[in-house]
Amino acid sequence: MRLSLALVHYPVLDRAGEAVTTAITNLDLHDMARSARTYGAERLFVVHPVAAQRALAERIREHWVLGSGKRRIPDRAVALDVLSVLPSLEDVYGALSSEGRAGVEVWTTAAASRGLPVTSYAETRARLAQASRPVLILFGTGWGLTPEIIADADLRIEPIRAAASTGYNHLSVRAACAITLDRLLGDRQHAG
Amino acid sequence: MRLSLALVHYPVLDRAGEAVTTAITNLDLHDMARSARTYGAERLFVVHPVAAQRALAERIREHWVLGSGKRRIPDRAVALDVLSVLPSLEDVYGALSSEGRAGVEVWTTAAASRGLPVTSYAETRARLAQASRPVLILFGTGWGLTPEIIADADLRIEPIRAAASTGYNHLSVRAACAITLDRLLGDRQHAG
Repeated sequence: MRLSLALVHYPVLDRAGEAVTTAITNLDLHDMARSARTYGAERLFVVHPVAAQRALAERIREHWVLGSGKRRIPDRAVALDVLSVLPSLEDVYGALSSEGRAGVEVWTTAAASRGLPVTSYAETRARLAQASRPVLILFGTGWGLTPEIIADADLRIEPIRAAASTGYNHLSVRAACAITLDRLLGDRQHAG
Repeated sequence: MRLSLALVHYPVLDRAGEAVTTAITNLDLHDMARSARTYGAERLFVVHPVAAQRALAERIREHWVLGSGKRRIPDRAVALDVLSVLPSLEDVYGALSSEGRAGVEVWTTAAASRGLPVTSYAETRARLAQASRPVLILFGTGWGLTPEIIADADLRIEPIRAAASTGYNHLSVRAACAITLDRLLGDRQHAG
């Protein structure tokens, strides 16, 4: 099992359903790196096309992995060491496989299936355990991944849902990432 | 089932294991309110002894529930409406039951069991479904809840773990809250 995560800032949807670029949020990097490290994901790729935004993410990483942040909270260096900052998804595919996109299992997450076929968490968990290619799970910022990215995926994970219908399904990307990792890699023996 | 959450800023531990008061983090309120609402928890209590910090949390709540935030992102109003800001855990117990502490099931979460007996998520899920008193799950900020609070609990939920040993277990409180709610109230039919 080789699993990595990508936090996508472009192309993602805005409220009106238009493709936009979103800004980097400091706590996304911390929370998703800590969750990745806790569950054993190899890398967390932060995907942003704007050089100044990538430089911001690199500065956050360096502060915690090499700088004074490491002295204050050593655990955080271990987590943020999983972070890689790249301009595009194509660069991420290239970092994971010499074959690029063809060498990577690309899986998407979304709050709604929008009519496309989705795969249950139980089946996704089984496929992850058996995957021969590196697996990359994409998380969208803003109002989520664009339809083109979702259509291009090798697997679309079913939306996260509560057992009871609450009429509300708006988790933060930090929460959705944590739950996805727990459902795919968490201890199920005692988890009910 | 009547479940509420409390985000505790005092008393919690610092790095050195001393009891301290921590500052309110804006994204804690957003993420935990959105997770609470998605999974059907009734209230998210923010517990802080300092009036100026409570005023900050109230301003965040009002901006999103009543102010311009509601017009921009109406979904966020629905989530932050679950927020209640109170000075102490005793006030939270009083808000949940006329009997105070005796009328509430108080459950704790922690990254390590510290030698105290813990209850598995499977059993905790079953107990939640059958609980007759309102249940309150406590989440600590900083380096976690104090030993006194954990010892006083009616139930201590087992630490969240990955299936494989990764040697790292430092989830953010936002991630831990999301995973706890998913393990107790998430759709298990497809979740593996």
